[in-house]
Amino acid sequence: MSVSPNNYKLSDRTANLTAQDLIPTTVGAVPETKEFLQKVIDILMDYIKAQNDRNEKVLEFHHPEDMKMLIDLDVPDKAVSLQQLVEDCATTMKYQVKTGHPRFFNQLSCGLDIISMAGEWLTATANTNMFTYEIAPVFILMETVVLGKMREIIGWEGGDSILAPGGSISNLYAFLAARHKMFPLYKEKGTISLPGQLVMFTSDQCHYSIKSCASVCGLGTDNCVAVPSDDTGHMITSELERLIIERKNMGHVPFFVNATAGTTVLGAFDNLNEVADICKRHNCWMHVDAAWGGGLLLSRKYRRTRLAGIERADSVTWNPHKLMGALLQCSSIHFKEDGLLISCNQMSAEYLFMTDKLYDISYDTGDKVIQCGRHNDIFKLWLQWRSKGTEGFEKQQDRLMDLTQYQVKRIKEQSDKFHLILEPECVNVSFWYIPKRLRGVPHDKHKEEELGKLCPIIKSRMMQKGSLMVGYQPDDRRPNFFRSIISSAAVTEADVDFMLDEIHRLGDDL
Amino acid sequence: MSVSPNNYKLSDRTANLTAQDLIPTTVGAVPETKEFLQKVIDILMDYIKAQNDRNEKVLEFHHPEDMKMLIDLDVPDKAVSLQQLVEDCATTMKYQVKTGHPRFFNQLSCGLDIISMAGEWLTATANTNMFTYEIAPVFILMETVVLGKMREIIGWEGGDSILAPGGSISNLYAFLAARHKMFPLYKEKGTISLPGQLVMFTSDQCHYSIKSCASVCGLGTDNCVAVPSDDTGHMITSELERLIIERKNMGHVPFFVNATAGTTVLGAFDNLNEVADICKRHNCWMHVDAAWGGGLLLSRKYRRTRLAGIERADSVTWNPHKLMGALLQCSSIHFKEDGLLISCNQMSAEYLFMTDKLYDISYDTGDKVIQCGRHNDIFKLWLQWRSKGTEGFEKQQDRLMDLTQYQVKRIKEQSDKFHLILEPECVNVSFWYIPKRLRGVPHDKHKEEELGKLCPIIKSRMMQKGSLMVGYQPDDRRPNFFRSIISSAAVTEADVDFMLDEIHRLGDDL
Repeated sequence: MSVSPNNYKLSDRTANLTAQDLIPTTVGAVPETKEFLQKVIDILMDYIKAQNDRNEKVLEFHHPEDMKMLIDLDVPDKAVSLQQLVEDCATTMKYQVKTGHPRFFNQLSCGLDIISMAGEWLTATANTNMFTYEIAPVFILMETVVLGKMREIIGWEGGDSILAPGGSISNLYAFLAARHKMFPLYKEKGTISLPGQLVMFTSDQCHYSIKSCASVCGLGTDNCVAVPSDDTGHMITSELERLIIERKNMGHVPFFVNATAGTTVLGAFDNLNEVADICKRHNCWMHVDAAWGGGLLLSRKYRRTRLAGIERADSVTWNPHKLMGALLQCSSIHFKEDGLLISCNQMSAEYLFMTDKLYDISYDTGDKVIQCGRHNDIFKLWLQWRSKGTEGFEKQQDRLMDLTQYQVKRIKEQSDKFHLILEPECVNVSFWYIPKRLRGVPHDKHKEEELGKLCPIIKSRMMQKGSLMVGYQPDDRRPNFFRSIISSAAVTEADVDFMLDEIHRLGDDL
Repeated sequence: MSVSPNNYKLSDRTANLTAQDLIPTTVGAVPETKEFLQKVIDILMDYIKAQNDRNEKVLEFHHPEDMKMLIDLDVPDKAVSLQQLVEDCATTMKYQVKTGHPRFFNQLSCGLDIISMAGEWLTATANTNMFTYEIAPVFILMETVVLGKMREIIGWEGGDSILAPGGSISNLYAFLAARHKMFPLYKEKGTISLPGQLVMFTSDQCHYSIKSCASVCGLGTDNCVAVPSDDTGHMITSELERLIIERKNMGHVPFFVNATAGTTVLGAFDNLNEVADICKRHNCWMHVDAAWGGGLLLSRKYRRTRLAGIERADSVTWNPHKLMGALLQCSSIHFKEDGLLISCNQMSAEYLFMTDKLYDISYDTGDKVIQCGRHNDIFKLWLQWRSKGTEGFEKQQDRLMDLTQYQVKRIKEQSDKFHLILEPECVNVSFWYIPKRLRGVPHDKHKEEELGKLCPIIKSRMMQKGSLMVGYQPDDRRPNFFRSIISSAAVTEADVDFMLDEIHRLGDDL
């Protein structure tokens, strides 16, 4: 068994103590504190080992009502013992889905980078907030260095960036900065200062957070125009221009275009140069949501073939916690123009951002963001970057893409059992599994419906068996289909073969 | 020395390896991986020990330009060795400000709860996302239990809650839900669906994130009305009602009132029952920003004397990472009415929130939030709650308030050297230090100006000496003054004495 709650016994001296008996409330209890923490680390070490063992399950599935019986979830009136806390940790890990298992292909963020994890442990222990140099001096400097490097990779000199809690909030920052840049009175006066109904544009394949900006910020989702995409998931740029002109003719004010570099489901890259040309003609802010595909900027090969033109954008979202494998969460938003973040978001709280401080206050980042406190998301990325070097990141991106091509090749070689939906541009592979009874039946809409019905059944079987995790979903054109993701450094060709073989084992009889 | 980069040597076998030589890329490298991780843990253990040692400095201050010389911040092209990474970790901790040191009184979040930290280590290793039960089964259930308990403590049956990345985003969730509840067409149609100019109200002492909502969401900060406060920092509720009526008479639509339970600087609690009466009369949503003061809900004594009426609110922000000492970040937003979060924020992404899943999808929380991915902020709080029990939390709150009273008593006993600005209601203590040359001089505006000028000098001396961290700031009524915070379980009466004595040592000659 991977992590068995009975295997972690504290010494008799320590087992029945409670948190109150440790530091800081019991001064001098350093040995007991260390013993407790070391026991937790033992559990985590065992978990990491098990996660990398292909004989171990990816998960041990239980329905919510059953899970509630397996773990004592109660937050009681009285303190539980240190021994109980250790067992709580072990039980929690026992039932957690191993997102870093080589057979976890389920989310955009897969894998467990050991160095990034060590960085996150340190971050927890440092337990500070990112608003001022005063209380996070080293981490603030690391942000400056790493975010500057990322902007350089995008292709900009200067500019400004911030780490945000997830791609959705990063996209929101882009929206806010665009609106502020184009309508500076808005911050104080609100909607009445606008020259007309603002309208934003994005493809119908975009991440839903783009539409959410319209809902949060006063446009209404009706004014977030979904530009049609082609069969392979790319925004049809001629449609973008037509729709901008249509809205202009209605007296509206198009101001913001989102291009997606790596769509969530199909992994498609919009044509950034075409979008940039249109934005220039119509005076729109160009944002690139590269939350997913941004990692490929680190590969010379894929930067050229997938992300050409990104340097023409006004803002770029790029999540290192996805293709780069940094721990969750690590999302960044970058701006070509410096000064916009602070001018857009500052509320000048005098209790934090005094101007009579000891040090150069240009290092205080807190007033640039709509959050006040901000989690330290930089250390795990900084340490990881040092551990690989930019060259290591490039190798990793190329390797993930090679593995994806291997999967495509294997699917094509087994075309009786698998149907590839489209040639992938990213590490998303979209496909159907074909069970025995449907092999040889001509592929048409009716067959797709049948294949779609099998996805939830196969998924449910794999979860109950615990052998594999692969996601499925429908889209506007198709019923349910599988979408596998290779973003974990743990995955090998053999794991890809296992994925396909296991789906076959689980679904052959359906 | 606390953490010296030279003290952590990997074995010769491991020192010159790089990340690539560890799991998962090098299968079987479990011993090397463990050795590396254990060395990082050794650093963290030493840091924790040093942080709790009163002979150690709180910080080792360096100006940004000097700090850049002390640490190699570069993210290089080539990987650095594991030994270098270990030294990077040690160097980082050497220069980090010890926010859990017993003499760190600088921020609302102070201290390092050992159990919560262990929880955050586990969270890092589990490295999952909180959008679905599918990939975070145990953590999702923990959220249900803990957030339910918190709503019960607020005084509600039912309702709904979510953990958000900081109090500012929590307040934004409240604003969005209020607007959606009162103007349900807004989500799709935007501002044009509104009956008139929306207006929100909050005291002039509120956290700046409230005003930020107005800027983000389309009201404009001009329509976030700052209600005057009295000398002790409480919203003047008669002014609130007068201003609501004034705006109504202008044809505007007052819809949202924020009451603050624990203001950032003075620690004042608005009168919640009076605010609730006014909200009822004028049909406004009542939000309570208890990000800071919420912890006192766990104390029967202070709940009654500080937070009476909170159960009448429509929404409450409450940050366990502040008075409760959970690790950063841990912020929660609670709603009296169930269903609002989902109806307000859902964008129904089909690729995540399919309805044909194996399990009860009511446990999928991802569609309730404007983020997509959400960091796991529950485990550290759940484990901490079990480690103390609700009774332990109550004791801790009462203890922090007792220590604050001790500080007030000591300030009054030394009234020649210290001037208490007001009787604190929370653990914020606002005071001036009086140097030798100003002792005995009658207190007036001119003297306050003089005392205010000393704050940055004393602060700069304490940072350079590294002996203490206490914050200062001006407010609308006063020039700079000190605001100390006792929110760390590490603080004792002796530390409070040290704080005052040290300020005296640093400032006597000024």
